[in-house]
Amino acid sequence: MIRQKATHVHWHHGNISRADRHRFLRQKGATLWFTGLSASGKSTIAVALEEALYERGKLSYRLDGDNIRLGINRNLGFSAEDRTENIRRIGEISKLFVDAGLLVLSSFISPYRADRDRVREQHRDAGFDFIEIHVDCSLETAEQRDPKGLYKKARAGQIKNFTGINAPYEEPESPEIHLHSDRMTLAEEVETIVNYMKDKGIIHID
Amino acid sequence: MIRQKATHVHWHHGNISRADRHRFLRQKGATLWFTGLSASGKSTIAVALEEALYERGKLSYRLDGDNIRLGINRNLGFSAEDRTENIRRIGEISKLFVDAGLLVLSSFISPYRADRDRVREQHRDAGFDFIEIHVDCSLETAEQRDPKGLYKKARAGQIKNFTGINAPYEEPESPEIHLHSDRMTLAEEVETIVNYMKDKGIIHID
Repeated sequence: MIRQKATHVHWHHGNISRADRHRFLRQKGATLWFTGLSASGKSTIAVALEEALYERGKLSYRLDGDNIRLGINRNLGFSAEDRTENIRRIGEISKLFVDAGLLVLSSFISPYRADRDRVREQHRDAGFDFIEIHVDCSLETAEQRDPKGLYKKARAGQIKNFTGINAPYEEPESPEIHLHSDRMTLAEEVETIVNYMKDKGIIHID
Repeated sequence: MIRQKATHVHWHHGNISRADRHRFLRQKGATLWFTGLSASGKSTIAVALEEALYERGKLSYRLDGDNIRLGINRNLGFSAEDRTENIRRIGEISKLFVDAGLLVLSSFISPYRADRDRVREQHRDAGFDFIEIHVDCSLETAEQRDPKGLYKKARAGQIKNFTGINAPYEEPESPEIHLHSDRMTLAEEVETIVNYMKDKGIIHID
């Protein structure tokens, strides 16, 4: 656990409540956390889901390993310690977006179970919905796809700490949603998630 | 400047554009950055502005020194180095919210001009509006108010690095909005900001 360094701080409560935001946006904020191997299809699904939600009048925002690493987490690398801090920060940013009323689509390899569970706890402690989505795809399939040639480079020893090759991936034990991206279509994957959100009252498709 | 540690990353473009978000929310995302001494009135103005915007059907979100420090920046203190990293991270978070289409009300002492200017540059480079609001109040007035008793503690040597007492505050040289909180009413302050946003086409009050 990270320690609380700053003292003399307390939480400000604004006049606009979470309930106000839900009414305003006609949705309940929530984090949808996509975890899986590189090239498993996380970002592809998140992009398609974002569009599907937009078409239904729902406001979402995508956080992505690539765009986050060019901004707030540009001072972090891929060591186990930096990966943990990377996920901790993303978890906190996700919470801010949920507090603002948005549907956050956080798409990160996030290979360590303990890191993901900490994000889940952070959400639970704040009373926020956290939906873990395992984008499950065999290493063989991911390595065949290899759209950026990263697996090839990792096999050649040019990338260290690459998940699945020379760094571990710890699968979720009981994710809210389990997608088998090597045998489902993109449309089926999006539909599965949208239906889950409807069932849980996170979105109400008018 | 902070160095880019992670390699093999690139920016993902989703199918939902910034223009789509503006149409959807009927507003242009922007960062309103409140800077000033402790007890100058930054958070009070931000809370009132948030409410005024909500009443006009505009979606904003407040980032605050206190609530950010209990979350993402809980591993930072008040040294000059930590203050710089604190502001850098908040600048990046603000950008994410602007990208999502929201009006971000970032309320932080942010005493160093260079730190604020860096956030301004980050926004400009991304094509985002950055509105610096100097909540100007004499040290005497702030110290008289002292709602949390912090000035008293700082004078007694119980708080180190307290802005205005034993740490510097560098005033903005040309802020977009300059509020004199020791001689303006809260309503006047909010109206000044709302009018600025209307003039700049950030919000269109229907």
